[in-house]
Amino acid sequence: MMLESFVPVAPDSDFPLENLPWGAWEWLEPGSSAPRVHVGVALGEYCVSATELQAAGFLRDLPGAPPGVFSHGRLNAFMGSGRAAWRAARQQLQRLLGAGEGALRDDPALRQRAIHPASGVRMLMPAEVGDYTDFYASRQHATHVGAMFRGPANALQPNWLHLPVGYHGRSSSIVPSGVDVHRPRGQVLPAAGGTTAPVFGPSAQVDFELEVAAVVGPGNPLGAAIPLAEAWDHVFGLVLLNDWSARDIQKWEYVPLGPFNGKNWATQISPWVVTLEALEPFRAPLPPQAEPEVLPYLREGPYPHRHTYDVELAVDITPAAGPGGVPARAATVTRSNLKNLYWSFAQMVAHHTAGGCNLRPGDLLGSGTISGDTPGSAGCLLELTWGGRDALELQAERQELERDQGGKGAGPAEVGPGGEAIGAGAVEGKGGGGVVLGRRTYLEDGDTVTLRGWCDGEGGTRRVGFGRCEGKLLPCR
Amino acid sequence: MMLESFVPVAPDSDFPLENLPWGAWEWLEPGSSAPRVHVGVALGEYCVSATELQAAGFLRDLPGAPPGVFSHGRLNAFMGSGRAAWRAARQQLQRLLGAGEGALRDDPALRQRAIHPASGVRMLMPAEVGDYTDFYASRQHATHVGAMFRGPANALQPNWLHLPVGYHGRSSSIVPSGVDVHRPRGQVLPAAGGTTAPVFGPSAQVDFELEVAAVVGPGNPLGAAIPLAEAWDHVFGLVLLNDWSARDIQKWEYVPLGPFNGKNWATQISPWVVTLEALEPFRAPLPPQAEPEVLPYLREGPYPHRHTYDVELAVDITPAAGPGGVPARAATVTRSNLKNLYWSFAQMVAHHTAGGCNLRPGDLLGSGTISGDTPGSAGCLLELTWGGRDALELQAERQELERDQGGKGAGPAEVGPGGEAIGAGAVEGKGGGGVVLGRRTYLEDGDTVTLRGWCDGEGGTRRVGFGRCEGKLLPCR
Ligand SMILES: [Ca+2]
Ligand SMILES: [Ca+2]
Ligand SMILES: [Mg+2]
Ligand SMILES: [Mg+2]
Ligand code: NI
Repeated sequence: MMLESFVPVAPDSDFPLENLPWGAWEWLEPGSSAPRVHVGVALGEYCVSATELQAAGFLRDLPGAPPGVFSHGRLNAFMGSGRAAWRAARQQLQRLLGAGEGALRDDPALRQRAIHPASGVRMLMPAEVGDYTDFYASRQHATHVGAMFRGPANALQPNWLHLPVGYHGRSSSIVPSGVDVHRPRGQVLPAAGGTTAPVFGPSAQVDFELEVAAVVGPGNPLGAAIPLAEAWDHVFGLVLLNDWSARDIQKWEYVPLGPFNGKNWATQISPWVVTLEALEPFRAPLPPQAEPEVLPYLREGPYPHRHTYDVELAVDITPAAGPGGVPARAATVTRSNLKNLYWSFAQMVAHHTAGGCNLRPGDLLGSGTISGDTPGSAGCLLELTWGGRDALELQAERQELERDQGGKGAGPAEVGPGGEAIGAGAVEGKGGGGVVLGRRTYLEDGDTVTLRGWCDGEGGTRRVGFGRCEGKLLPCR
Repeated sequence: MMLESFVPVAPDSDFPLENLPWGAWEWLEPGSSAPRVHVGVALGEYCVSATELQAAGFLRDLPGAPPGVFSHGRLNAFMGSGRAAWRAARQQLQRLLGAGEGALRDDPALRQRAIHPASGVRMLMPAEVGDYTDFYASRQHATHVGAMFRGPANALQPNWLHLPVGYHGRSSSIVPSGVDVHRPRGQVLPAAGGTTAPVFGPSAQVDFELEVAAVVGPGNPLGAAIPLAEAWDHVFGLVLLNDWSARDIQKWEYVPLGPFNGKNWATQISPWVVTLEALEPFRAPLPPQAEPEVLPYLREGPYPHRHTYDVELAVDITPAAGPGGVPARAATVTRSNLKNLYWSFAQMVAHHTAGGCNLRPGDLLGSGTISGDTPGSAGCLLELTWGGRDALELQAERQELERDQGGKGAGPAEVGPGGEAIGAGAVEGKGGGGVVLGRRTYLEDGDTVTLRGWCDGEGGTRRVGFGRCEGKLLPCR
């Protein structure tokens, strides 16, 4: 049975009443002089302020949550309150926003204060990120990248099947969707090769990485590991994550201590955190870990214990709009799925804390690039172009096709609305029967990268989506 | 000329009026029911609360500092205020605390509120650390570790002389001196060798790393690099840093993305941040970077432009007290100096931000293990024991000797006061003519690790010290 709200929600919306993802935004109340920060949930094309609803007397009975948990402008305190509080808030919001409930529906003043059109807000980071960890949990990605660098015989390092490899990332440079980023400068070896004398200049190999990140819930005190059986209780929800990467900088710097300036200039997330409660109907198995069997602290029972969620993923590249008002159009360059991981988020939590490292509410655990088995499912250009060897055609028609099939895969706030005839200026060629918008080994200035993710409703299950993680690559500052 | 305060300061104190390092602490005011957090400076055996002094009307004219900059319980806002504010606060405090000034000296009520005995406070982290970066800036350390792992011919990686290699560390697990840490569990390859099947258990190779960290001042917005010429203006001051490390965990996990669980279970700092103003009399050169010459964005003019500070460093290991009340005694296991770096902190700042990565006030930039040229100057047990091959004797007499020479090298709050005859229970042997407290390849449960750092006064320059970075290794939790 599908839930109905008095707030209008389009059938293909990412954000029906079944979803209610959490976020933070800035909103200028009409007649007010300065914008205020709200936290709350998305519903259709609206943002529903838990900050205002709690001030009005709702959402006050949340077991484990401190008073005024929605008054801080960020969701860290709510994330730290635990699953009982998250469930209670979800239930109370689904009731309050339901078609049959009058408490909010019939109070025009409160509705005006608490329900903001999404088109009028500026989305912020949902939480302060104390620490950001990036894992490397897709076997396909690790195998492809390893084969490129060390040959197919040594593609996977000896540790890879025994533990979820991860490293610490940079917290300060995490930005929400909608923020544009600048191409970084850095130290690289000249492409010509044969020299060990580096040069300093703009990166020529800017890439995206298609990832999903777990947002940490309560977390643990320093020294107290989180056992695997409790690990999912420390995941509040999931977001899309683009780990912007400069491959030439990364390649020169990363030995022996890992990526640094190749990655720390920007990491981007979708602003709405989709809760595990909303994802529960889409629970899905992961590949078995039988050969080798993992150590007991990482060993999960068979599905449904060991699980992920069936989240379809796509990345679009939208080249800059052509001259003469030619509208920008998007080309979908990869399609993957959260099922394409080897390690579960629960295993990442258990491994991360096994030595006593403490996780805090709002911390991010990136999955690593999520690549599938087929050529079109690789989660970054490094793989899609095999290290820049094979240029990729940006074909517009794939996404057009999708849109004809009923908006599947197109998020609620299309950047380039598209569908119209386009001028010759934006068309560089034709290939495979579709409109070719350009060719890429790595990203060019002006390219917009859009990550999308969604769980498809089938037979009475409504689509639950992640919205977008989107940013434009600007030239070097 | 030496400065004199009305607060008593011992001649060999780390904290004379010339130093005035900044910190944060918890203090229970007599007659009050709950402790309060103060920020301020150390002076002799006292903590002087800038929080109270500012509330009483002092320290209000600090150019660039927001009102109430000392009322937040941490120093981030002050660190973000910039050098003009830091200098003004230092000058005003040196005047206010000077022997000839009556405003504080002759106000007993304010003195009681603002000057707390160090023995009665609990030191806290001086700032919230948004991000912690660890560099690898000692050529000797990188060469020794590289030779151990790859042989002397390939000791330094090709990038090492071209850029300050660094990686992102874990912020959540940084603790101040005085907090004890637990031996971590983790996944390691069995020591027997010949197998690629890991096991999970307590680390058998727990080590310290002797480092100094720069505490970031104003920092930069995302996308705007800090040029080398301005880089020192973004360093508020320096602390001692012990990068606790589990070598067996690190060795198995670190390929290809760097250290993770081997390091993220604890990092410890000294609680007092010594400012660059206090260190200025001890400015010292670094080795030249002529072969190869570094790229222009990292190129500094000769000394005094390219510089560090002459900070003597030492590490003591104090085994657990013996049975029957035998007092614990410390053995100094290494002596090094901040001059033993190849890269300057200014170069680390410039490189870190070169691609646009933003630094925030209070961020930590660890130098990496600071090893010198001689066998006794290596900054970690991995080097001192050549990977655990050669056990190290813990000799008590070195520190005794020092103490006889007038407290040189001994901090203000000696853990094991020593000097007395000790019972046979704690003496495992004799060697080199001194009392041998034990042997170590790596640390044992109950060992206390103490980092000390100081600039020696010569000819009218008073000693400026860092105090201690000290923690005990407890058994696995
Ligand atoms: Ca990544
Ligand atoms: Ca280190
Ligand atoms: Mg990134
Ligand atoms: Mg550490
Ligand atoms: Ni961090």
